[in-house]
Amino acid sequence: MGLDSGRLVRDLKELRALTGDEHGAQRVAWTPTWLKAREWFQAKATALGMEHHLDAAGNSWSTLRGESERVLILGGHLDSVPNGGWLDGCLGVLGAFEVARGLSEDYGGRPPLTIRVVDWADEEGARFGRSLFGSSAFAGTASVAADRMRTDKDGVTLEAALAGCGIDVERVGDAVSEQADAAAYLELHIEQGPVLEGMGLPLGAVTGTKGVERHAITFHGQEAHSGSTPMGVRRDALAAAAKLALEIRPIAKKHADAVATMGSVKTFPGIVTAVVGRCEATLDMRDLDAGVLAEMFAEAKAASERFAAEERCSVAWSRIWSIEPIPFDERLIGFCDEAICEVAGVSHRLPSGPLHDAAEVARAGIPTVMMFTQSLAGLSHNQAEDTKVEHLEMAARAFDALARKTMGWLAS
Amino acid sequence: MGLDSGRLVRDLKELRALTGDEHGAQRVAWTPTWLKAREWFQAKATALGMEHHLDAAGNSWSTLRGESERVLILGGHLDSVPNGGWLDGCLGVLGAFEVARGLSEDYGGRPPLTIRVVDWADEEGARFGRSLFGSSAFAGTASVAADRMRTDKDGVTLEAALAGCGIDVERVGDAVSEQADAAAYLELHIEQGPVLEGMGLPLGAVTGTKGVERHAITFHGQEAHSGSTPMGVRRDALAAAAKLALEIRPIAKKHADAVATMGSVKTFPGIVTAVVGRCEATLDMRDLDAGVLAEMFAEAKAASERFAAEERCSVAWSRIWSIEPIPFDERLIGFCDEAICEVAGVSHRLPSGPLHDAAEVARAGIPTVMMFTQSLAGLSHNQAEDTKVEHLEMAARAFDALARKTMGWLAS
Repeated sequence: MGLDSGRLVRDLKELRALTGDEHGAQRVAWTPTWLKAREWFQAKATALGMEHHLDAAGNSWSTLRGESERVLILGGHLDSVPNGGWLDGCLGVLGAFEVARGLSEDYGGRPPLTIRVVDWADEEGARFGRSLFGSSAFAGTASVAADRMRTDKDGVTLEAALAGCGIDVERVGDAVSEQADAAAYLELHIEQGPVLEGMGLPLGAVTGTKGVERHAITFHGQEAHSGSTPMGVRRDALAAAAKLALEIRPIAKKHADAVATMGSVKTFPGIVTAVVGRCEATLDMRDLDAGVLAEMFAEAKAASERFAAEERCSVAWSRIWSIEPIPFDERLIGFCDEAICEVAGVSHRLPSGPLHDAAEVARAGIPTVMMFTQSLAGLSHNQAEDTKVEHLEMAARAFDALARKTMGWLAS
Repeated sequence: MGLDSGRLVRDLKELRALTGDEHGAQRVAWTPTWLKAREWFQAKATALGMEHHLDAAGNSWSTLRGESERVLILGGHLDSVPNGGWLDGCLGVLGAFEVARGLSEDYGGRPPLTIRVVDWADEEGARFGRSLFGSSAFAGTASVAADRMRTDKDGVTLEAALAGCGIDVERVGDAVSEQADAAAYLELHIEQGPVLEGMGLPLGAVTGTKGVERHAITFHGQEAHSGSTPMGVRRDALAAAAKLALEIRPIAKKHADAVATMGSVKTFPGIVTAVVGRCEATLDMRDLDAGVLAEMFAEAKAASERFAAEERCSVAWSRIWSIEPIPFDERLIGFCDEAICEVAGVSHRLPSGPLHDAAEVARAGIPTVMMFTQSLAGLSHNQAEDTKVEHLEMAARAFDALARKTMGWLAS
C-alpha cells in the first residue's frame, strides 16, 4: 500500500519505450507521439478512479476528489524536445501520479484534500518557439494574439496544430478558470544542471526561477586590410567584444548563483585577411534577485561602452527578451527542505536557471515550490540525459513527503 | 619632351572610363573587360614602337629595344578585383609606360638599356582564388597541377578560362624564359594602407613584402545550458578564444611593423542559451623579418595553449597558408629613397603587408624594388580607393628618377 517508488521507475521506462526511439524522447507537443503519451497516461489515471478533462489551453487534468474542495496541484509536462531525455518533464507528471496513487490507496480513494495531477501543454515550445504555453494560459499570461500565427518548420500554424488537438485558439485564455480552489502547486523535476552532482547530493529544494536579461550587442569598428593596417590605427570590433566576453565573468561571479553567458559571436566581414569591422554578440544573464540582475545588466552595459571607447568603436544594445525572477513560497521551500532531509539526510537550496511551468503558477499567486533531483553530468535536452535509479526512488519518497506536509498545512 | 606626369593621370582616367562602371573597376582577369583593357594598352605601346607579345602564362610584355640587351623591367597588373579601385595595379603598368614613353622620347626611340613593360596576368586571383598567377609562372613557382581545376562561381575551370584567352595550361611554366637578360625590376603601386597618409608623406620606398603565417585555431570546451551551469564549472571555448584575440596584439606590438589579426570567430552551437562548446578562429600574422614572424607564431601558439588550459579547453592549430618574408634589393631601395627625396623632399621606408608581383620577381633573384604612393584613408579593393592627383604626378616623376638611377647603375 501507499507510495511505490519502484513503480514510478517502471512507469518512466514504460513511457520511454512507448514514445522514444534510438535518438531519444519524441513527445513534441501537438504531435501524434505526444497524444499517444497522454492517452497512455490518462488510461492509468482513469483506472485509479481519477476524473479527467482537458482545459481550454490543452492542459490535461486528472482529479482525485478529496474530503475538501481545496485543491493541491501536482504536475509536470509529458511533452519533450525532439531527441529529448527520458526524464525531463514526465518525471513531474509520473511522480505526481505516483503520489496520488499512494494517497488514494492510503485514504481509500478519498484523501483529505482534492488532488489534481496536471500535465501542462507544450512546456518546451520545441515546435513553435513558445514555451510554457499551457501554464501561462492557466496563469492568465497567455499571449495568444502574438502566438497564434507562429509556424513550425513545415509552415503549419500554431492555431492549426491546436485545432488538430481539439483546442480552439480563441478560448485558450479560459484556462484561468482552473485556478479555482487551487491551494498550492508542487513540481518534481530533474535539475538539468551540475550543481547537485557536484555537491554529491541526490535532491535539492528550489528557491525560485532566475530572472533573465537577454540582449543582442553589436560593436561597430572599421573593416581594414590585415596586411596593410598597422596595429595602432585599427578599430577592431572583435577586440571590444572579446573584452566583454571576459568581463561578464567577474560581473557574474560577484554573486553566488548568478550566471552570464556570451553564447554567440559573429564577425563581419569575417575573413582571415580583414580586421573585424562589425561584431555581433549575444548576452544572457540570470539571477534569482531582481536587484542583482539589474546591477549585472548595468555593469555589463557600462563595461561594453568602456571597451568600445578603448577600441574607438561604437556599441549598441538591443533587448531580445527578459523576465523577472520568480521566487517560490518560503513555507513550501521549508517543507521541501524537511522532506529531502528525511529521505536523504541532507538538503540544499538552489535557484533554477531554466524556466519551468512552476514559475507561471507562482506568478498566479498560488504558493509553489519545486524539488530537483540530481542530473548526471548536468546533461538535458538530449538522449544522454540521465539520473541514477536510486535517486529517482529517493525523489519519489521525498516528493510524497512534501505533498503530505503541504496537505497537513492546508488542512490546518 | 620626356616624362609627362599629367599624361599618366589622363591615361589612368581613360582606362577607368573604359573598364569601370558605377561600382568601380571591373577588370577581373580572364574576362572580356580585362581583355579590352589589355587591347587598349597594347595599342598605346605599339604606337610608341614597342614590340608586344604574350608569354606562356599570359603575361603581356611590351619591349622598347635599347643599346644593350640587358633588360630593365617595369610593371604592374591591369587586372582588378570586382568593383575594384581605379589605381590598384594599373598605376604600375601605366606609370611604367609613361617612364618608357619619356625614355623613348629622350633617347630617340633607343635608350641605353632595353626597357620592358610587363602587365602581369591575374595578380588578384579574384576569379579563381590563385593570386600572383603570371608573376609566379615567370619566377618558376607556378603551381599549375594544383590550380588548373580551380573553378569560378559559375563552375568554369581555370584551365578553360585560360584556353579562352589563348593560354595552354600545360605550357604556363614556360614563362620562366622571360627571365633572360633581366637585370632589375621596378614597380609603382598605391600603398593600400594608412601609413604614408598618417605621416603626411606622398611617397615611400618599399623594403620588401612581409611574410605571412595564416592559421585556423579551434578551441574545444563543453556546450552547456546558460541557465543551469554555474560559472565555476564551465569550459567556455569562447573565453579561451577571446583571451587569444586580445593577446595577439601585445605579441605584434613588440615589433615595429608586425601585424596580427583575428579576422573570423565562429561559435558553436552559437545560440543565446548555450555556453560555447567549440570556437573556431582565424589568425593572420605578418612581418618582414622571418625571425620575428617565427617568434610571433610561437608566442601566439604558446598563449593559446595557456588560455586553453586556464579554461579547461583543448586547442588545435591548422596552417591555412604561409609565405616567407621577401626583402627587396638594398641598392634599389637606396635609389628609391633618393628618387623620392628629390621629388618630395623626404622619403620613408616601409614594408608591404599585401603581397605583390614584385615579391615573385624578387624570389627569382632579380634585383627588385617597389615604390608606394599614398592611399587616401588606406582604402583599396573598392570604389572608394583614391590618391590625390598631385601625389600621382609626384609618383610619376619619382618613379622616372628611380628608373634612370637604376639604368645608370646597370650601365656602369
